[in-house]
Amino acid sequence: MNLRIIIKYMGLILRMESLLMLPPLVIALVKNEASSAVGFALTAAILMLIGAVLALVKQDDSGVYAKEGFVSVALAWVLISIFGGLPFYISGVIPNFIDCFFETVSGFTTTGASILPAVEGLPYSILYWRSFTHWVGGMGVLVFLLAIVPMSKGKGGGEGFQLMRAESPGPIVGKLTPTLRNTARILYGIYFLMTVVEILLLLAGGMPLFDSVVNSFATAGTGGFAIKNASIGAYSSPYLQLVIAFFMMLFGINFSLYYLVLLRRIRDVFRNEELRVYLGIMGTVTLLIFLNIVRTYENIGKALLDSYFQVSSIMTTTGFATADFDKWPEFSRFLLVLIMIFGACAGSTGGGIKISRLIMLVKSGKREIMHIIRPRTVKTLRVDSKPVSEETVRNTNAFFVLYFLICVSSMAAVAIDNFNQETTVTAVLACINNIGPGLSLVGPSGNFAMFSPLSKIVLSLDMLFGRLEIFPMIMLFTPSVWLKGRHKKDRVKIVE
Amino acid sequence: MNLRIIIKYMGLILRMESLLMLPPLVIALVKNEASSAVGFALTAAILMLIGAVLALVKQDDSGVYAKEGFVSVALAWVLISIFGGLPFYISGVIPNFIDCFFETVSGFTTTGASILPAVEGLPYSILYWRSFTHWVGGMGVLVFLLAIVPMSKGKGGGEGFQLMRAESPGPIVGKLTPTLRNTARILYGIYFLMTVVEILLLLAGGMPLFDSVVNSFATAGTGGFAIKNASIGAYSSPYLQLVIAFFMMLFGINFSLYYLVLLRRIRDVFRNEELRVYLGIMGTVTLLIFLNIVRTYENIGKALLDSYFQVSSIMTTTGFATADFDKWPEFSRFLLVLIMIFGACAGSTGGGIKISRLIMLVKSGKREIMHIIRPRTVKTLRVDSKPVSEETVRNTNAFFVLYFLICVSSMAAVAIDNFNQETTVTAVLACINNIGPGLSLVGPSGNFAMFSPLSKIVLSLDMLFGRLEIFPMIMLFTPSVWLKGRHKKDRVKIVE
Repeated sequence: MNLRIIIKYMGLILRMESLLMLPPLVIALVKNEASSAVGFALTAAILMLIGAVLALVKQDDSGVYAKEGFVSVALAWVLISIFGGLPFYISGVIPNFIDCFFETVSGFTTTGASILPAVEGLPYSILYWRSFTHWVGGMGVLVFLLAIVPMSKGKGGGEGFQLMRAESPGPIVGKLTPTLRNTARILYGIYFLMTVVEILLLLAGGMPLFDSVVNSFATAGTGGFAIKNASIGAYSSPYLQLVIAFFMMLFGINFSLYYLVLLRRIRDVFRNEELRVYLGIMGTVTLLIFLNIVRTYENIGKALLDSYFQVSSIMTTTGFATADFDKWPEFSRFLLVLIMIFGACAGSTGGGIKISRLIMLVKSGKREIMHIIRPRTVKTLRVDSKPVSEETVRNTNAFFVLYFLICVSSMAAVAIDNFNQETTVTAVLACINNIGPGLSLVGPSGNFAMFSPLSKIVLSLDMLFGRLEIFPMIMLFTPSVWLKGRHKKDRVKIVE
Repeated sequence: MNLRIIIKYMGLILRMESLLMLPPLVIALVKNEASSAVGFALTAAILMLIGAVLALVKQDDSGVYAKEGFVSVALAWVLISIFGGLPFYISGVIPNFIDCFFETVSGFTTTGASILPAVEGLPYSILYWRSFTHWVGGMGVLVFLLAIVPMSKGKGGGEGFQLMRAESPGPIVGKLTPTLRNTARILYGIYFLMTVVEILLLLAGGMPLFDSVVNSFATAGTGGFAIKNASIGAYSSPYLQLVIAFFMMLFGINFSLYYLVLLRRIRDVFRNEELRVYLGIMGTVTLLIFLNIVRTYENIGKALLDSYFQVSSIMTTTGFATADFDKWPEFSRFLLVLIMIFGACAGSTGGGIKISRLIMLVKSGKREIMHIIRPRTVKTLRVDSKPVSEETVRNTNAFFVLYFLICVSSMAAVAIDNFNQETTVTAVLACINNIGPGLSLVGPSGNFAMFSPLSKIVLSLDMLFGRLEIFPMIMLFTPSVWLKGRHKKDRVKIVE
């Protein structure tokens, strides 16, 4: 294990987080929010100090292997969540530190589950920080680092690649351009541009500037923290709700497809299997829920908008709400739980197991059936007409098994709190899939405040397991990863 | 597709079922239950007639391949369930035919889910038939056929093997002896012997003869149909409850281990990884539930017995109850749902995904983590120190994915009935894992009567999917399986 390189990354990350505190600090000063200003200023200073100390550690550029990449990413996310919770704590907005940690993990992982019973009346700077963590966490903190910090001398881009591989959602990591730095910049460029477009469209619909900005942050990161107690339901304009629903859907799409759009390779975009399945499931579930709930609505248009908004919100794992879907008929409620698990596209800001994994899992199931009918043949899986390596298939299956095991272990731990089963089960699903609200006590009108400290820690870890797609977090807790000894043969070939 | 051989098997199966009607017919005559006697006699006659007609079809012994084996098994189970429900219908005990089908599928698949609100007061012959279907279905109807009917001329035992492979639970099918007929006979011999021992032990504890026999049938098949409204709770003797709990546990163990006991290879038995994990999980969950519920009990011994009985009942997928576990704290309730899914050992009469599959899934997850740490190595999975083929690992993973997809699709269908989510989810889990009771409305004190016909059909199919371990039922509904054309290369090598 190359500890020095991990320390180097941690130093970079903490200094970066220090800078991220500046916008909310400015807001606190402008809005005259004294205790919040102290919170952000103090935290920024602490982060800069620790970051500077870590930068003094002598560097070792002997190479970054998969395990260093995975551990760095996992550790970075744990650290930024711990320090990112300090402003809540110092300002006194959230008096319990475990709650601060939960809220910040929920922000960075773009979950949007909150321990706050009400958000209206909180300081602007605090509201901004909550939503800003969504925006930063959505595209990834290490990807951001890759975009702005020059990484070590070539070596085939190995150093940055391991970080990107560990942080990017989805079973396969591809580079858009030959250099990783450009890939990271393009991704953040698209992300930034789309966020700005959403802000403008919301402003055009009459939403106040502050609301437009923070709601766009939460949409872009598919986060879901709201600044109104009634979430997006507080904005009664169908136009505003539709814009947000549409942008949630857009941010749930693989960003490399937007790059293809920029390259004018539109035909490739529409051929993309994951996109078609994603839109297909979203459309079908919206229709089914619409048919299921329409009788309870006076206005058919409102029923359709509510169906689309909620489906887009849950499937992209954002977690905004314009209706209390916990009160919907059981068929609709179950479909929502199902798309919580499916999640959004790989390479998007959304969570869940990802549509591309779902496609591969279904295809591997089908292949096994064909294998019984024609025992001598085992076909190669194909996605987008391209063969998928058996290694990826194996990894996807293992992912699914580990996902299941983490879910049920977490549910057992949370069940100790003795809330009803729906609360227990959907709280875990809402956290591990980075959605936010679940059903029953953690439904759109509920929150996570009532859980025990143990459950809050378990659910926080679930959010990290979900956002980082399990393996990095497991690495962090695997003792053999930390044991000494570096092996030249551990270097992983770069998958393009 | 070799349709003639499938017809031959169906003829044999129906004639066999005709003979199985004789014991309840005798009971009906002895106990003077006129309408039941008519039901059994008429059904037996119909079965014998159809069976005889099917026997007239010219045979084609050109070989049995995997798909013929899988389709024969699936079709046989559907047919015996349809015809096995006729006595309920003709006798008027269950007026709705879908209910009759549900009850019979539930019997043969050893699920034990019932649409009857009360069973006390039903004719003896009907109660006997319900429990007897558990006993027949537990070890398998085609395995029974293999034990008594001479199968076609050698060909390496291919014919019977495909049937056994499709019907036997677990990821790997092994023959105990060189000939399949002897294997089937040994399995049924052990099964019969253990059932008799249980009957004697129950008689010794003062249980009436009829009760001892039918309760032993339901225990042996890990079925769970009771003849008392309070299930086994109606027998207040701790001795009787302990005997049944212990025998449920025994019938959840791989029967090939009992064969090893007969061969005095005791050390191999205790080395068996699946057995150790099975007993380990059962012991741990019993202890956890005991600790969770003990405060609500006056008698510690009773708390321990209730914990053990319920865990043994649910994990072996029997479904007997001595306590209303639906009223237990959430932690205990969730653990019970979890062991519903895990199930019993491969090669036992129990259902669920099976402990051996669970072991392989966990190991394949672990292997993938090791692969990230040491990218150049992919280790062979080992169970009981023996290497497991990648084909088996792949099949197990595909099984798990298909299991998940069937579960969630069924839940969505059942959710249309608009019962609460716990009822919907656990009804499907209780059926696909062949347990019987779930939680909430389908808990130990509830039943399945209130579901719509659609839900009852879906749940019946789930029971069949579970008992036959998914693939045979999928084959039955795959059009390409039925298409003409036989391929020499489709013959599967026999796995020993």
